[in-house]
Amino acid sequence: MIIQKTENSRISTFDPSNFSFGNTFIDHMIICEYENGKWGDVKLVPYGPLQFSPAMMGVNYGQACFEGMKAYKDKDGQVFLFRPEKNFERINKSAKRLAMPEVTEEMFLDGLKALVDIDREWIPEGEGMSLYIRPLIFATEEALKARVANKYMFAIVATPAKMYYTEPVSVKISDHYSRAASGGVGSAKAAGNYAASFYPTQLAIEEGYDQIIWTDDATHEYFEESGTMNVFVRINDTIYTPPTSEKILDGVTRDSFIQLAKKRGFEVKVEPIKVKDVVAAQKNGTLKEVWGVGTAVVTTVFEALGYNGEKLDLPRLSDEESYAVILKNDLVDLQTNLAEDPFGWRVLVDHAMETV
Amino acid sequence: MIIQKTENSRISTFDPSNFSFGNTFIDHMIICEYENGKWGDVKLVPYGPLQFSPAMMGVNYGQACFEGMKAYKDKDGQVFLFRPEKNFERINKSAKRLAMPEVTEEMFLDGLKALVDIDREWIPEGEGMSLYIRPLIFATEEALKARVANKYMFAIVATPAKMYYTEPVSVKISDHYSRAASGGVGSAKAAGNYAASFYPTQLAIEEGYDQIIWTDDATHEYFEESGTMNVFVRINDTIYTPPTSEKILDGVTRDSFIQLAKKRGFEVKVEPIKVKDVVAAQKNGTLKEVWGVGTAVVTTVFEALGYNGEKLDLPRLSDEESYAVILKNDLVDLQTNLAEDPFGWRVLVDHAMETV
Repeated sequence: MIIQKTENSRISTFDPSNFSFGNTFIDHMIICEYENGKWGDVKLVPYGPLQFSPAMMGVNYGQACFEGMKAYKDKDGQVFLFRPEKNFERINKSAKRLAMPEVTEEMFLDGLKALVDIDREWIPEGEGMSLYIRPLIFATEEALKARVANKYMFAIVATPAKMYYTEPVSVKISDHYSRAASGGVGSAKAAGNYAASFYPTQLAIEEGYDQIIWTDDATHEYFEESGTMNVFVRINDTIYTPPTSEKILDGVTRDSFIQLAKKRGFEVKVEPIKVKDVVAAQKNGTLKEVWGVGTAVVTTVFEALGYNGEKLDLPRLSDEESYAVILKNDLVDLQTNLAEDPFGWRVLVDHAMETV
Repeated sequence: MIIQKTENSRISTFDPSNFSFGNTFIDHMIICEYENGKWGDVKLVPYGPLQFSPAMMGVNYGQACFEGMKAYKDKDGQVFLFRPEKNFERINKSAKRLAMPEVTEEMFLDGLKALVDIDREWIPEGEGMSLYIRPLIFATEEALKARVANKYMFAIVATPAKMYYTEPVSVKISDHYSRAASGGVGSAKAAGNYAASFYPTQLAIEEGYDQIIWTDDATHEYFEESGTMNVFVRINDTIYTPPTSEKILDGVTRDSFIQLAKKRGFEVKVEPIKVKDVVAAQKNGTLKEVWGVGTAVVTTVFEALGYNGEKLDLPRLSDEESYAVILKNDLVDLQTNLAEDPFGWRVLVDHAMETV
């Protein structure tokens, strides 16, 4: 790895109690360029702009995929990653589906650890605080031809993060728009999937909702995801979530919730969820909770579902009653080293950069 | 418009009889930036890289759409655009579906004309030659939040073009992969649609085909598009093409072919095309031609269709017999001012830059 430390650290301008998530960037980033069929050196460099032409294939043809993950600081100042090997596996699954070169474990994991290590001062401490990390791969070749690119960049950038989305939200069950085609790229964290979701979400917001529960594009009879998250439904005391597929992202938080629920002895069924079953459960009072999970927000609890022009209210459970809240706390406690880690999910980030 | 002419023209290095399409760029480009809810000045500047961060939302969330269009030079050196108002309308349709700001007619058409005018020397002359022009809009804001961006760039870049894809190709009728979801972004020229098509196309190539005929994702029973083109089928002497929809791009070449076919008195039916009807027509000998149309290639004639593991051969028609070839020639003659233009499709590009 080639390391070029910044000579103009911005850390003194960073106020951990008052910063803007998403556009406050840490001092450094990782970059690595692909050309002539192979990846070059991994470089740790100061965060900042690079030179790209508007003919860059990544913005013309959408060959671009990413990951979202976090690093956490415990009360003793130790820094941990959470299941980074899952993100490594998934970025390569996304890359394959978009005909992009896969990255090596060394590029991904060593790059990640070096970046988090060198900028560990940027990780805010305290409940719900973390460093949000964005590995991505995108086509950089300048060419106006709709074909697989020959040049790419792998990059890792990061921004300090607070917990957000704390209030329950209302969501519209989609009856027209969809996020994924059968035989499409829904299971990839493809850049284009996100842009495609914005306009339908704007329309849902105009109707008085905050997000969309995506349903299958052919019939709109089955739940797929919610916003940019995986979705869970609790009917009586059983938790349901749809199986992953080529249309549904294999979320790390989703998988962690399933395992944490089983550890608690909650009944979890990974099976297709029919819209009409959820609506019927709401009508007969057995629908207890619906929530979304993802890395950025961990959990968003829903207070109402929009269906067929009707707003179906969900019960307001206490934190002690809510499986969503219980599992979220279990997960955050594990991530931030407040609880045991029987799964081996935490990965300590060593101090290796001090001598650099 | 702010005009900054290059001081280092590369035109002397350009050999119109020997250049690489797609990565030979003309001397200038158009750029215009969007911020604080409005577009800034349109700028004509030397072609080249700009400064973008890997956190640019365009590559992270795929908010990016483009157009493909051409300028032609006739034997007297006059330069023409072809139906540019159609591309202007469509880029804004794409922008709307991707929750991006629409561009103004002034930005798009005046920018286009100024660019083509100043770099008219880059337009190669002769049969099949043209300048391929790429207007695009993409999100430039640096932010790691999956939401609508606040900053964008509109750009126009261009590359000299030859006619390509001259040999008939064989195409696989898709039985698993698809390019568009119902309720998705198939009718937009969204960057992500192209990346999604590359891997399925690679698989088809491994099976011995050149391209894919995309079918509907739910049943694979209906033709949608072919490669990055609209698709036409001729059974006996009737031409069929699917109606545009939210899954099918409203192609300018498609529309032009329909109008030129009608002008010739060919029967054209714009209606859904069933895979099984095409296969049956091939079996009973009434399937005469299948072809794709698009700006870049104008027409690609198919010599075989792959269906259910079988390669169904198509008749090899002479240029005089082939509706695909007849209509292609009609179109190219009109575009290059070798034929009358009863439709008013040609737009002459004035000499306005000589005094700049």
